[in-house]
Amino acid sequence: MGFASDSGQVIQNTPDTSTPRLIALDWGTSSQRAWLLGDRGRILDARRPDFGLLGATGDDPGSRTRDYEAAFDAACGDWLAASPGLPAIACGMVGSAQGWREAGYLTTPTDLAIDAADLTTVPHPRGVLHLVPGLRVAPAADGTVAGDVMRGEETQIIGALGMLTPTDSPLTIVLPGTHTKWTRVENRKIVSFATSMSGELYGLVMQHGILGRTAHGGVRDDAAFERGLVTGTSVPSRGLPAELFGARALVLDGLLDPASVPDYVSGVIIADEVRHLLPQFALGGRILLCGNADLCRRYAAALRVHGVVAEMVAEEAAAQGLWHVAIAAGLVEQTPSTNHQKETP
Amino acid sequence: MGFASDSGQVIQNTPDTSTPRLIALDWGTSSQRAWLLGDRGRILDARRPDFGLLGATGDDPGSRTRDYEAAFDAACGDWLAASPGLPAIACGMVGSAQGWREAGYLTTPTDLAIDAADLTTVPHPRGVLHLVPGLRVAPAADGTVAGDVMRGEETQIIGALGMLTPTDSPLTIVLPGTHTKWTRVENRKIVSFATSMSGELYGLVMQHGILGRTAHGGVRDDAAFERGLVTGTSVPSRGLPAELFGARALVLDGLLDPASVPDYVSGVIIADEVRHLLPQFALGGRILLCGNADLCRRYAAALRVHGVVAEMVAEEAAAQGLWHVAIAAGLVEQTPSTNHQKETP
Repeated sequence: MGFASDSGQVIQNTPDTSTPRLIALDWGTSSQRAWLLGDRGRILDARRPDFGLLGATGDDPGSRTRDYEAAFDAACGDWLAASPGLPAIACGMVGSAQGWREAGYLTTPTDLAIDAADLTTVPHPRGVLHLVPGLRVAPAADGTVAGDVMRGEETQIIGALGMLTPTDSPLTIVLPGTHTKWTRVENRKIVSFATSMSGELYGLVMQHGILGRTAHGGVRDDAAFERGLVTGTSVPSRGLPAELFGARALVLDGLLDPASVPDYVSGVIIADEVRHLLPQFALGGRILLCGNADLCRRYAAALRVHGVVAEMVAEEAAAQGLWHVAIAAGLVEQTPSTNHQKETP
Repeated sequence: MGFASDSGQVIQNTPDTSTPRLIALDWGTSSQRAWLLGDRGRILDARRPDFGLLGATGDDPGSRTRDYEAAFDAACGDWLAASPGLPAIACGMVGSAQGWREAGYLTTPTDLAIDAADLTTVPHPRGVLHLVPGLRVAPAADGTVAGDVMRGEETQIIGALGMLTPTDSPLTIVLPGTHTKWTRVENRKIVSFATSMSGELYGLVMQHGILGRTAHGGVRDDAAFERGLVTGTSVPSRGLPAELFGARALVLDGLLDPASVPDYVSGVIIADEVRHLLPQFALGGRILLCGNADLCRRYAAALRVHGVVAEMVAEEAAAQGLWHVAIAAGLVEQTPSTNHQKETP
């Protein structure tokens, strides 16, 4: 598999007695994760505060700053109080134009070797928070081909790559989620990526659309998911909006249980995404799935339809990525005992 | 063009002095249209009551019936009071299992020659309402291929066909809307159709999704729509959910005005639908667009990208279709003066 042998050990949420070395935050649009990391990026404590990007607070920058400071303090103020001067680093939409402070982007192709100069610092009452830049694909100069952006996933990719035996072989990293990212790595560089808003569409269709009203109950139905995969892979495709309507017709014909609609629709949407992006991103080499375990299993099943076997990477890749960036930027010192591959290439 | 020369004349909403012959209702999920028709289906009056299917009224069939009776009376009770015994006919979701009464389906292939035996009658205090059956494509026997359904559009198709010079030549009828229908007619029979929920997806994305939050203002921008068509036609396709995310990237890169996002997204979604369904349904013969004029223009533009010139049919096709069905079912008598092609093939 090639994963570092200690990748499982670092994922534990029980506090231990190690010395805290770093506060790491994955601060997204709708949620936040906070980790207290010890030597070698070992997770000493983990939290999921229930706030993400803060609502617009009008045109008063001072008010916005105070809101973010309060949210930061709520997430990890006690950790900082217990360990004054502990460095803190964050990735995700907190570094967007709508976030605490705009943290810029690296542009593909890039080796993601983020150092101190790439980080944006935000002062807060207890010290400084370091923000990781996002990643972008530049659009065509004439605007005919759109570019792409990610914020937060670049840090998960750094973490995932850090768990692999270093290699120059090409690979594809897929990060399933609300906005799934397909990332191509060649010669240790991110050469390109694309975003599919499949997860968002699934949520919209099931929460606000006719398919949500068609579904009743809702039980996990792996067979319905597999059936959706078949529909979403059928040739010729009638297009995603037509394949989705098929779920309603199946229910009306008594061929699909209303309670199974969510899993069927999940299969149709993921299969449609995979059929389009697999040929454009899986150009040889391994395929890694990184993210929520259930969602990764669904993508793995959709990839198997095409004869592709993907490898799953642990969910806590963001914490590991933040640790690697903090090391590279000199925020924390590599301990002599470490043998982590990222630092001993 | 081949449209009957009087097809324009019948479309007028100003009352005239002709004798009322028929009450015609297109009663859909979210809205209702009511027409008072005179000789030869001439529109004497038209209304758009602001209710569609009525909300579930629990398990009491009596309560549900009373609700539908009241809605029917609000829509056209005065017309019936002024002309007691006037026949009334309705198409659309009012004939679904969630409607006033289930009106069944015809199954493709069918010539849509609906007669009295095909209509479902619902008694109401002033007489009887006749319901037009829907149309369905049967699913594969093993359930691996979904069927399809329409309710209301079959009547628009009857109306649109009635406006054409009768012909055995194949043709394709596209009815753009929340759930756009692509219908194939061969040897005067509906041989197949497919539904694309493109209009629903557009609404979901713009009302509830990140693209709606990305859009600000919102002005009509035909150039942005055309640009969306190019994106939605690009080869290879990255899949609809990825092409949609491109709108956000374009805005972040300053290459698309936030106010133009709605038209750009409209172009992407319609182009994606057309690229998939055109090759499966436009198998020779003319292509007709039937529905809302602005939406039909958008589909016509998307079809032009593929070198296809479509013809537009008037919006009031449903009223004309209901008139034709009423004639065929003997609800109204053909007046001697008529020379409408449907009755003189």
